[in-house]
Amino acid sequence: MKEEKADEKGLSVKKSENFSEWYVQVLTKSGMIDYTDVSGCIVFRPAAYALWEEISRAIDTEFKKDGVSNVYFPLLIPEKLLQKEQAHLEGFTPEVAWVTQTGDTVLEERLAVRPTSETIMYASYAKWVRSWRDLPLRYNQWNNVLRWEFKHPTPFIRSREFLWNEGHSVFATSDEAIAERGRILGIYKKILEDYLAIPGIVGRKSEKEKFAGAVESYSIEHMMPDGWAIQGPDHHFDGQNFSKAFEIKFLDKNNNTEYGWQTTYAITTREIGVLVATHGDDKGIIMPPRIAHVQVVIVPIFRKEGTEAVKKFSGEIAEMLKRDYRVRLDDRDGYSPGFKFNEWELKGVPIRVEIGPKEVEAKKVVIVRRDTGEKHEVGIDSLAKEIGSTLGAIHSELFKRADAMLRSYVHNVKSYDEFKKLLAEKKGIMHAPWCGEISCEEKIKEETGAKITNIPVDQKDLSGKCVYCGKDAKEMANFARSY
Amino acid sequence: MKEEKADEKGLSVKKSENFSEWYVQVLTKSGMIDYTDVSGCIVFRPAAYALWEEISRAIDTEFKKDGVSNVYFPLLIPEKLLQKEQAHLEGFTPEVAWVTQTGDTVLEERLAVRPTSETIMYASYAKWVRSWRDLPLRYNQWNNVLRWEFKHPTPFIRSREFLWNEGHSVFATSDEAIAERGRILGIYKKILEDYLAIPGIVGRKSEKEKFAGAVESYSIEHMMPDGWAIQGPDHHFDGQNFSKAFEIKFLDKNNNTEYGWQTTYAITTREIGVLVATHGDDKGIIMPPRIAHVQVVIVPIFRKEGTEAVKKFSGEIAEMLKRDYRVRLDDRDGYSPGFKFNEWELKGVPIRVEIGPKEVEAKKVVIVRRDTGEKHEVGIDSLAKEIGSTLGAIHSELFKRADAMLRSYVHNVKSYDEFKKLLAEKKGIMHAPWCGEISCEEKIKEETGAKITNIPVDQKDLSGKCVYCGKDAKEMANFARSY
Repeated sequence: MKEEKADEKGLSVKKSENFSEWYVQVLTKSGMIDYTDVSGCIVFRPAAYALWEEISRAIDTEFKKDGVSNVYFPLLIPEKLLQKEQAHLEGFTPEVAWVTQTGDTVLEERLAVRPTSETIMYASYAKWVRSWRDLPLRYNQWNNVLRWEFKHPTPFIRSREFLWNEGHSVFATSDEAIAERGRILGIYKKILEDYLAIPGIVGRKSEKEKFAGAVESYSIEHMMPDGWAIQGPDHHFDGQNFSKAFEIKFLDKNNNTEYGWQTTYAITTREIGVLVATHGDDKGIIMPPRIAHVQVVIVPIFRKEGTEAVKKFSGEIAEMLKRDYRVRLDDRDGYSPGFKFNEWELKGVPIRVEIGPKEVEAKKVVIVRRDTGEKHEVGIDSLAKEIGSTLGAIHSELFKRADAMLRSYVHNVKSYDEFKKLLAEKKGIMHAPWCGEISCEEKIKEETGAKITNIPVDQKDLSGKCVYCGKDAKEMANFARSY
Repeated sequence: MKEEKADEKGLSVKKSENFSEWYVQVLTKSGMIDYTDVSGCIVFRPAAYALWEEISRAIDTEFKKDGVSNVYFPLLIPEKLLQKEQAHLEGFTPEVAWVTQTGDTVLEERLAVRPTSETIMYASYAKWVRSWRDLPLRYNQWNNVLRWEFKHPTPFIRSREFLWNEGHSVFATSDEAIAERGRILGIYKKILEDYLAIPGIVGRKSEKEKFAGAVESYSIEHMMPDGWAIQGPDHHFDGQNFSKAFEIKFLDKNNNTEYGWQTTYAITTREIGVLVATHGDDKGIIMPPRIAHVQVVIVPIFRKEGTEAVKKFSGEIAEMLKRDYRVRLDDRDGYSPGFKFNEWELKGVPIRVEIGPKEVEAKKVVIVRRDTGEKHEVGIDSLAKEIGSTLGAIHSELFKRADAMLRSYVHNVKSYDEFKKLLAEKKGIMHAPWCGEISCEEKIKEETGAKITNIPVDQKDLSGKCVYCGKDAKEMANFARSY
């Protein structure tokens, strides 16, 4: 009987005591990721990549229903293209990885490994868009990008290479471009809630924090368990900034030449990190049922007698459940049931089914919820249905907990003293009246480390004076320390 | 009425007269691809990327059934890792694109943009593989790779960046590793035949032509319409070459330390090019029905009277057919039916449905096959079924034609004179007895330009003397000029 010691495989820290160490341990020990010799770049092992497959497939399906087509543009972008839009250039060049040699040849012009693809895509869009008949043009790509950040890398959360979607649209009018925002952010929000069981706050980025090259940026902001905010997916209205720089022009119905109105949107593999951080506990990961690679693990429990009967019954249960669910039968020899329980709890499988000689005899099984640890017996006739309702209940419970965590971190503050006190003592988001001036935003960041994550779309509670300068508030903004 | 001239949108050359010019025109004018400012790198426009989505999805589904898991490894590979396996290093370094700078920082060690991922993956495998219990380890990734070739680039066929799958397995025994070959090549062959309607010849690569680092390489070889061969997907048995270089070791059941036995396999976006080249005609592309992004295009035909009735009926037919097929209703105003016919023929939609006032009245439609141009009337009650059987018939016809083309290019030759004569006059594959010596293989290549594409698995017809040296033939090899 092979028994690894708990301290080799299990977690050695509690989530509540040392979140960042817990986060890295849970990802590495569960087998989600591994580090490589390239700093800031990780391996997505099968459990992690399977999550991305589920997330991207769910979103891609919704994009296609909304009329988006997928394309693929080259990885490498000539330096002169990157230089065409000034704000964009300044935002990205400090982080660009440059290809300067191929084989033994030194290139005449450096090629950027795409940090994002506006510049190379829009050079083509300029050729393709001629008439109002060509619009809207709504293309998307699922790919890899590099941003060579020098801040401390954290798997998924801040990686030098990540996977994402980048949607890039051209519309004939400003109104149509802006109208896309609600649909795209709606898709992101729905998939985050319905599949990942992660809530978020939808809002506008401040002028200071908006995307390099955008007119208006909107984001969904998440809350991490340590009280730091983290940006999720976003949608940018670029106005005519890029279309003017790249000459994306069209003849409208009246035969006038107009510049196109553009948007950009993205969701990244960062969400895998948010998911793990949000739902996990001191035993390991808890996978949200709808995107769990394995939804049900069956662990047969036998001593010397009854081995064959337990194995046979377990196999039958596995076959039955596989019709409706993603099931793993863990019939490995040489590992104790306790060892297997710990391993699957670490990996976060939502439901464990235990089957011993007693269960075989009574034609029932024990099911154990990963989120609550609750155990109960179920007869095999109602098992398939019970698994379905329990997976649903686990999803609801995970979302409820995540939403409660997010809410507990949102503090309505009226004064700067209260702001500083709560930020220091409770962390999280300071939901505060703001005059709209960048000077106050910058001072607050300088003095507290909190930036504006976003300005919630919901402004029903707008009232009071700017927490910093005391002038009339223009909007309620969310300030937080942010990953 | 907007009518572009045929020479703007249509093809200006015949496939049989100038194949390479036809190939580029058909890809660009149909809207499959566009060129970019980066030489050798193309844009996959929606019609091209949709093909890759269908191909990769079909293959991925089969891989998963066979027990393969997907992963994602970093794009960049440190130079020292690339240097670990000598044959591999020599094979790839002349084509590597190097990242040497990030932001303003010059890197201490160059990072290769992956040309293939053996080296970075196997450094991790060495950490993960400990015991026979960890085997087989069968991982795959779908990603982009760069190979900075200096030969003339051709879209899909020879691109500096391409998309592919790279499967990398470790087995406990040589036999298990070799047994994977039949399953993987079987999956590739099945998808190529059943989805792309493309045949191929399965065989072993010669020692000279095998993969850099492999013990044995097997490939599926296609034939292009111009009589040049082109390599399709492949599977390599690497023996212990990489496991020794990377220290991928495990404890077997007897507690002995052994090196793993490895394999590698891939299919690339090159198949899109083979598909277009194989099936297309002087009117444009012909999409194989099972992977066609649009399987049926409906073109309403109206003059002044009956417009509304035709539009309404066409819309109803479209809705009905959408239940089972991928359907596009081309109800654009301002384009004539003839213009639309040409456009959809260029893009290769397998079936066109024509609906005019006469059809509305008779409750029937005209369906036109893209492959044969055959037209016939179908009543709406049997339409859905008829579309299904016609799509099936088109698939069969395309495969039959492609297979006939391939066969017509395989020449059984007994002597070197016959070899040279047929190669010059008929092109294609010289299926010839060979002594197995690299010296003959090299002389033949030097003198005729034909290399060994592969040595067919089927050796039933082995007989005769080596076409070059006259010694007893060891095997029948296929020699061809190859892309």
